[in-house]
Amino acid sequence: MSKIDLHPDRLFPGDETARNIARALYNHVRDAPIISPHGHTDPEWFAQNQNFANATDFFLVPDHYVLRMLYSQGVSMQDLGVQYRDQINKVDPRKAWQLFGTHYHLFRGTPSRIWLDYVFSEVFGLEEQLSADTAGHYFDSITAALQTDAYKPRAILDRFKIKYLATTEGALDLLPHHTKLNADGYGHRVVSTFRPDDVIDPDREDFRDNLEQLAILTHEDLSTFNGYLNALRNRRDYYISMGVRATDHGHPTARTLALGKAEIEALYQICRSGRGTLEDHENFRAHMLMEMARMSIEDGLVMQLHPGSYRNHNPEVFRAFGRDKGADIPQAITYTEALKPLLDELGNRSDFTLILFTLDETNYARELAPLAGHYPCLRLGPPWWFHDSVEGMIRFRQQVTETAGFYNTAGFNDDTRSLLSIPARHDVARRMDCRFLGQLVSEHRLHEDEAFDLIGELTTGLVTKAYRLEDI
Amino acid sequence: MSKIDLHPDRLFPGDETARNIARALYNHVRDAPIISPHGHTDPEWFAQNQNFANATDFFLVPDHYVLRMLYSQGVSMQDLGVQYRDQINKVDPRKAWQLFGTHYHLFRGTPSRIWLDYVFSEVFGLEEQLSADTAGHYFDSITAALQTDAYKPRAILDRFKIKYLATTEGALDLLPHHTKLNADGYGHRVVSTFRPDDVIDPDREDFRDNLEQLAILTHEDLSTFNGYLNALRNRRDYYISMGVRATDHGHPTARTLALGKAEIEALYQICRSGRGTLEDHENFRAHMLMEMARMSIEDGLVMQLHPGSYRNHNPEVFRAFGRDKGADIPQAITYTEALKPLLDELGNRSDFTLILFTLDETNYARELAPLAGHYPCLRLGPPWWFHDSVEGMIRFRQQVTETAGFYNTAGFNDDTRSLLSIPARHDVARRMDCRFLGQLVSEHRLHEDEAFDLIGELTTGLVTKAYRLEDI
Amino acid sequence: MSKIDLHPDRLFPGDETARNIARALYNHVRDAPIISPHGHTDPEWFAQNQNFANATDFFLVPDHYVLRMLYSQGVSMQDLGVQYRDQINKVDPRKAWQLFGTHYHLFRGTPSRIWLDYVFSEVFGLEEQLSADTAGHYFDSITAALQTDAYKPRAILDRFKIKYLATTEGALDLLPHHTKLNADGYGHRVVSTFRPDDVIDPDREDFRDNLEQLAILTHEDLSTFNGYLNALRNRRDYYISMGVRATDHGHPTARTLALGKAEIEALYQICRSGRGTLEDHENFRAHMLMEMARMSIEDGLVMQLHPGSYRNHNPEVFRAFGRDKGADIPQAITYTEALKPLLDELGNRSDFTLILFTLDETNYARELAPLAGHYPCLRLGPPWWFHDSVEGMIRFRQQVTETAGFYNTAGFNDDTRSLLSIPARHDVARRMDCRFLGQLVSEHRLHEDEAFDLIGELTTGLVTKAYRLEDI
Repeated sequence: MSKIDLHPDRLFPGDETARNIARALYNHVRDAPIISPHGHTDPEWFAQNQNFANATDFFLVPDHYVLRMLYSQGVSMQDLGVQYRDQINKVDPRKAWQLFGTHYHLFRGTPSRIWLDYVFSEVFGLEEQLSADTAGHYFDSITAALQTDAYKPRAILDRFKIKYLATTEGALDLLPHHTKLNADGYGHRVVSTFRPDDVIDPDREDFRDNLEQLAILTHEDLSTFNGYLNALRNRRDYYISMGVRATDHGHPTARTLALGKAEIEALYQICRSGRGTLEDHENFRAHMLMEMARMSIEDGLVMQLHPGSYRNHNPEVFRAFGRDKGADIPQAITYTEALKPLLDELGNRSDFTLILFTLDETNYARELAPLAGHYPCLRLGPPWWFHDSVEGMIRFRQQVTETAGFYNTAGFNDDTRSLLSIPARHDVARRMDCRFLGQLVSEHRLHEDEAFDLIGELTTGLVTKAYRLEDI
Repeated sequence: MSKIDLHPDRLFPGDETARNIARALYNHVRDAPIISPHGHTDPEWFAQNQNFANATDFFLVPDHYVLRMLYSQGVSMQDLGVQYRDQINKVDPRKAWQLFGTHYHLFRGTPSRIWLDYVFSEVFGLEEQLSADTAGHYFDSITAALQTDAYKPRAILDRFKIKYLATTEGALDLLPHHTKLNADGYGHRVVSTFRPDDVIDPDREDFRDNLEQLAILTHEDLSTFNGYLNALRNRRDYYISMGVRATDHGHPTARTLALGKAEIEALYQICRSGRGTLEDHENFRAHMLMEMARMSIEDGLVMQLHPGSYRNHNPEVFRAFGRDKGADIPQAITYTEALKPLLDELGNRSDFTLILFTLDETNYARELAPLAGHYPCLRLGPPWWFHDSVEGMIRFRQQVTETAGFYNTAGFNDDTRSLLSIPARHDVARRMDCRFLGQLVSEHRLHEDEAFDLIGELTTGLVTKAYRLEDI
Repeated sequence: MSKIDLHPDRLFPGDETARNIARALYNHVRDAPIISPHGHTDPEWFAQNQNFANATDFFLVPDHYVLRMLYSQGVSMQDLGVQYRDQINKVDPRKAWQLFGTHYHLFRGTPSRIWLDYVFSEVFGLEEQLSADTAGHYFDSITAALQTDAYKPRAILDRFKIKYLATTEGALDLLPHHTKLNADGYGHRVVSTFRPDDVIDPDREDFRDNLEQLAILTHEDLSTFNGYLNALRNRRDYYISMGVRATDHGHPTARTLALGKAEIEALYQICRSGRGTLEDHENFRAHMLMEMARMSIEDGLVMQLHPGSYRNHNPEVFRAFGRDKGADIPQAITYTEALKPLLDELGNRSDFTLILFTLDETNYARELAPLAGHYPCLRLGPPWWFHDSVEGMIRFRQQVTETAGFYNTAGFNDDTRSLLSIPARHDVARRMDCRFLGQLVSEHRLHEDEAFDLIGELTTGLVTKAYRLEDI
C-alpha cells in the first residue's frame, strides 16, 4: 500500500530557482479566501445544512469526471450507483465504492486523481492511497465523518474559507434555497447565477413547455418577441434582487447575430411554434446572445459564454442515465467571426463585461487572446472543464499571456458540482500560477516583486474585478 | 568528423531528479520484447529470408521521410535511386548514398536523424557520423554487412527481439508470404493486417477493377450490396484463418454514416458504376466504416482508423515516382461529429475495439481524449507519422493523458516500412514514456511505484490488450 | 522603484547544462549584423535623416501592440495621442506618455515589455523601470536624446549594425524616399518590398481608384486582364530596378486558383466594375497569387504570403482611428488544400521561393512543416505578429523542426514599424534559437558543433539564402 503523496512542492517547477520562487509566491496566497464565481453545487445543501448521506452518493455518483473514466473501461454506471431511468438504484453504496477503489489506477495522470487525493488526505485525514484494499476503510471513514457537524455544508464553507460561492440556476427557478439562505444571513455568500438556456435554446425538447412556464411566472404575454424579452428582463430583475451578479450561457457555438425587428419577430414565432430548423435554432440563439448583452448593459449583470460542447453525445447513455454523465464532447469552434456582430455593437463599452471560455484550445493564441487584448468588454475565463488541469493551465498561460496579458483574464473558476473538491481545485490553480510566475521570474521575464503583485491579482484581485464583487 | 552520440541518457529530462527516475524506468523496459502491431514491412523478406542487396536500395529508396527532406532541398529523386515511371533506375547506388551523406545535415533536429544514427551505430557498429566524408565507408560497411547471415530478415527478427510483427496487406492479397511463414513456423510472429481501402474507396482509379478481382477471388456476386458485404466477410475470414487480428482503414476523413438498406444499395450501384460524385464516394466510405465495425463485432477483428492524409498531394511526383514518396500532406479533420453515427450504434460495446489515430493534433485534447475517456469501444493509437517524434510524443502525452488517462491508449506502433529502424523507434518511444513518467513523479503527480507499473503497461501491456494479443 | 532587469542569461533555459550551451551559442552571434528582410519602418526617416520629435509620437502612437493592450483596459486612444479622424490630436505628448507609464504593468508577461525594456535600457540608458513615477523622467530623457545626432535615423542604422533593412510599399508608390536613399548611397541598405494588395484585393474600398492610378502610372490599358498583368509587370520591374528582392501578399486566406484565360478575363471585368461578390473577390485574389508566382518565376522576386488576419475587425475603431490600431484579429485558416493549385503548377521548381507565414499555429505541425518538408519552392517564415514572442518561438521550433528541419525555414523577420525595437526583437530571436539548440544538445539530440553551425544559419545564413541576399 502506498501513502498519499501531497508533497509541499507538488506541481512546482523542477528547476530549483524557479521552484523556490514558486514556493514563496504560494506561501503568499495559500491561505487566501476562496472566491468561486462560477460553479454547480446544489444550493439546497447550504439552505438545509443537512449531513450528506454517504461517500458514494456524495462523491462518486455526481462526479461526471469519475463516471466517464470508469465507464470508458467497461464499468457499469448502475453498479456505481447511478440511477437508471426512473428505477431507484438499489446497489449497495459500499459495493459501488469498492468498484471505484478497484479502478482507482485509471485516474493516474488525471486531475481527478489530484483533486481526490487532496480531499481524501486534507479533508478526511486518510493516509493510504485508495485501492481495492483500502476502499472499505475509505467508505466507512468518509461516511462516518459526513455524519458529524464538522462536515455539514455550512461548516464546510467556513472550513474551506469560501468567501463567495456562485451556484447556477435555470431561468425558471424560484430560488427557494437562496431565499432561505438570505433569511439565514448567507445570502451574500452563496449566490445564484442566471442561466437562461432552458428558455433560449429551441433545440431543447422542453423549450416550448419552458416558455409556457416563463409566461406564467412573469405574467408576460409571450405571443410577441417583445413580451418574451420583457419576461426575460423580469426574471433577470428577480435574480438581481437576490444578489446575482452574472449570467451564464452554454451555447453550442459562439455565434452572435443582430437581426432586425421584423426578422427576429418572425424567427421567434417559428421557434416558438416548434417548426424551426436546426439553422433557425442556431440563429435564434445567436440573436439572443445579442439581447442578453444588451440587457447586461441595462442591468449590469456580467455575461459569461461557455460554448463548444456537444451535449449528450451518447444517446444510449442519455436515455438510460440522463444529462451530465460524462458524455458531453467538445467540438471545433471559432470566435473571431462568430462574435463580430456582438462586438460591433457593444465591444467598445467598458461598462459591459463578457467573459469567454473555450473547450477548443486552438482559439487561445489564435482568437481569444487577440480579441481580449483589444476589446474593452472582453475578459478570458480560466481553462475550462477538461482543461481545468495541470497541463491545461500551462497551455492557457503560455498561449494567452503574451497577447492578452494577465489583466484581461478573470481569475479562477472551479466550475464544480463537487463541494469537497473546491479547495483542491483552487489549490491546483494557485500552484500552477505560482509555477508559471516562478518560471517567468527565473528566466528574467518578470521581476520578483511584480510576481508577488500578480499572484494576488490571479488569486483574488482579477476575479473580484471581472465579476464586480468589490463589495463582498 | 564527429562521433555518433548515443548518450545513455539521451531524450531524458534535463532536471536531475526527473532524469534519475526516467533512467530507472528505462532500465526496467529497455530489453523488453518488441510488439509491433501495425507496420508496413514487406512479408516477402521474412518468407524468403534472402539477404538485402545494398545500403541504398534497402535504406534510402524506400524511406519516404528521407526522400521528402532531400527533395525539399532540391535533390533529385532519380539521383537518389528512385525509379522514374517504368524506367529502371541506373544510378550507381554508391553515388546515391554519397548524395545522402552530403545532405545528412538536413536531418538535424528530425526523428529520422535519431533513428538513423541508432541504426548506424547499434546495428552496424559505425562510429563516425554520416557525412560527405564518411558516406563511401558507410555504403561499403553496410552493404557488406547486409550480405552476411546475421543480417538476414529472420536473424534480424531475433536480434531485435521482435515477438510480434504485423504487416499490412490489401483486401485482394492472397497472403502467399504469410502462407510460407506459417509453413516455416513464423506464422504467429509475422502476421498480416486486413486493409480493404482498395475495395472500399471509390476515389481510387482501380476501384472497379478491384471489385472485379474481389468477385473472382470470393466467388460472390457483387451485383448487389449484400453480395459485396459477403465478399468482404469472406476475405476477413480468410485473413482471420491466417492469424490476423486487426483491420486498418486509411480514409481521408473520420466520417461515418449509417444508411438505410435501400439508400446504401443505391449508393453502391452508383459507386460501382463509376458514376459517383466525390460526395457519393465520401458517403460510401463513411457507410463502409459502419459495416466494417459491424463485422468486427461479428468476427472479433480490432479496427484501426487512420484518417486525415491528403495522399499524393503532388501530382508531378505521383506521375513520375508513384505513391509513398513523401508527398502525402495532413489536413484539418474532426472526430466528434464524424464518428457519432458509428458510436451511436456501437460505441457502448466493450466487445468492440476501435483504435483512433490522427495527423491533426488539435483533436488530441479537444475531441480524441474526451471521446476515448467516455466510450468503452475506443482506444487512442500513438502519435502517428510526422508526430512519431520526440516533440510529437510530448504533445500526445501532455494533451491526452489528463482526459483519457493512460489506460485508454494502445501502446506504441512503429508503423514503418524500414525494418532496421524498428528497435530505434521503439527505443525512442520507451525513452519518451520514461521521460514523461519521470516528470510526473518528480512533480509529485504520480508515485514512483505507479510509474514502474505504468511503464510496463505502456511498453507491452496496453498494446497486448488493445490488439487482443494475450496469446502470443 | 525597480531596476530594469536585462540579465545576461535572460530567456535561456533553467537547466544549467542547457543554459551554458545556450550562452556559448549566443556569444557566437550576439554581435552579428542585423539582416531585416521584412518590415514596416518608414523610408522617409532614412531618406530625410531628421531627428524624431518626441517619445510619444515616435514610440507610443505608432505601436499597435501597445495601443491595443491599453485600449483593452479602457484607456482612450485619443488620450494616448492617436489622431481621431481628420482632427489634429492636441493631447500633450508628455501627458500621453504619463498615461502609458501609469499602465505599464499591463505589459507584464508580453513581448512588448521585453522589447521596450531593452530599448529603454540599451538605447537610452534608463535604469529604473517605466511606471507612473518615472514616466516624466522617461519622456524628458528620451525626447532629449532624440534631438541629438546620435539618434538620427542613419546613425541608428549604424549603431544597430543593420546591414539590410526592407521596408514595404504598395504597388502605386513612386519610391521617392528610396530614390533619395539610392542617391545618398543607402540604396543597398534600405530597400523596399513590392506589396500589391492595393491593386489586387477587390474588397478594398479604394480598389477601383487604385486601378486608375495604376493605369496612369504604367501607361497600360487596364481594360483587359492582359493589360492589368502588364501593368503589374511594369511596376515589378520598376521595384526591381530599385533593388527590391521580394514581394509580399497579405491575403485573408491562403487560397490559390488557376483559372483559364476566359474565366479570369470575365472575373477581372466583374471585379473591376465593382459588381463582384465576396466570393468573386476571393477567387480573384486566389488567381492573382498564381499570377504573382508566375511572375516571380520570370523576374526572380521572392514571394511572401501572410494570410489569416481579419483586418479592421472593430468598425468603430476603424472609422475613428483608421488601420493598424491593434484591431486586426487572426482567423482559422488552412494551407494543404488552399495552396494546391499553385503547388501543382510551380511547387517543384527550385528557382521559385515562396515564404509562408501563419497566424493560425495549428498549421505548424499539421500542414506547413509537411508542405515545406516536401516542396522545393517552399520555405517557412518565422513566428509572425502575435507569435513573435518567447512562447511563440518555442512553439514554432517545437512544432516545425522535426518535420521541416531547420533548413526549410527562413531566419528571423522583425516585421516592425518601430525602428528602435529592431535590435530588441532580433536579440529575443537569437536568444530563443540559442535556447532551443541548447536544449537539443543537452538532451543529446544534436552535437554541440552542429549547434554552432546552426546558430549561424538561423541568425544570418538562412535569411540570406531565402531572400537571395548573397550579394549584400
